[in-house]
Amino acid sequence: MADCNALPLVILAEKFASLPGIGMKSAQRLAYHVMSMDEESVGEFADALIDAKKNVHLCSCCQNLTERDICPVCSDDSRDKSVICVVESPKDVSAFERTREYNGVYHVLHGLLSPMDGITPDRLKLRELLARVSDGSVNEVIMATNPTVEGDATAMYAASLLKPMGITVTRLAFGLPVGGILEYADEVTLYKALENRNCM
Amino acid sequence: MADCNALPLVILAEKFASLPGIGMKSAQRLAYHVMSMDEESVGEFADALIDAKKNVHLCSCCQNLTERDICPVCSDDSRDKSVICVVESPKDVSAFERTREYNGVYHVLHGLLSPMDGITPDRLKLRELLARVSDGSVNEVIMATNPTVEGDATAMYAASLLKPMGITVTRLAFGLPVGGILEYADEVTLYKALENRNCM
Repeated sequence: MADCNALPLVILAEKFASLPGIGMKSAQRLAYHVMSMDEESVGEFADALIDAKKNVHLCSCCQNLTERDICPVCSDDSRDKSVICVVESPKDVSAFERTREYNGVYHVLHGLLSPMDGITPDRLKLRELLARVSDGSVNEVIMATNPTVEGDATAMYAASLLKPMGITVTRLAFGLPVGGILEYADEVTLYKALENRNCM
Repeated sequence: MADCNALPLVILAEKFASLPGIGMKSAQRLAYHVMSMDEESVGEFADALIDAKKNVHLCSCCQNLTERDICPVCSDDSRDKSVICVVESPKDVSAFERTREYNGVYHVLHGLLSPMDGITPDRLKLRELLARVSDGSVNEVIMATNPTVEGDATAMYAASLLKPMGITVTRLAFGLPVGGILEYADEVTLYKALENRNCM
């Protein structure tokens, strides 16, 4: 990055490059773009960074990111509080909300079990999940973690804690993606689609 | 973007999405990443934005971006001030500096002529270029704008102003890129390579 002439630009480019998915070349381009923005817009960008970091925290109920004490989903009386969809990250909540079909609530684990990377059960928001279901108001917990080794392990582990409490634990269905082409599906997906076949 | 729950996050994601080459999906991912950074790092990022915008301005000589009054290239006594390489943007200066072969100085136009987009000669730093060469200390001006319609037009226009002042105006060589494969070169490049052939 020593090929920008101005030091503040080098520093800014390095900040951009520290973000995921932004390489040195893009970071430099972004830094140059900031130069072409007016001072007010740059100030607003800086304020947005500080503001998001300062005012956004975890919902005290579902652990999703929110600027309120309780997030809009948890405080919405029309949502069915007896069904909890457990996801890895806030991004996944957004994905489910986009479907406009799910009317239950969520619980964000903020990670998946991965003992190799030192992510043990106490690093996830599992304690908070168990506390939520302990009052008996929850009938079903949907484990909506990714269909990966870590996602499956986390779902299995959570299920092993929840089932003894008399709660129905379900897992997302895995099969052919809608609009997908059978010929291009990988073996595991196709096997899952066959195994989980439904009556017509 | 209405699918992030927290408003400050939505605002931050929109700021990221306003940068070139960052779509809504990436912007949302970046906003979530900022949440995972510690407060100090976020503060440093915000400061870097403000600092770059406030302290970086145009070199009073070559119009490149710098935090000093005169940029390091212009204030370097070992550089040959009689040769000026004229480029479109500060990025191009970085590209030439990376070659470590050029020992002259630069002039940044901050754009290319494009009458259709309202970019007329007075919008470029051409006046400043003419002022630099008017004292007779400059022997050669290298027009290093891109080989595009706008780049060529800008080079031709600048040459028409500089030549009457008795200055040698040159243009970058166009031909096969080094390491390129003849078979894959486009017709114009191949024609240029043929036309500009050199004695061996």
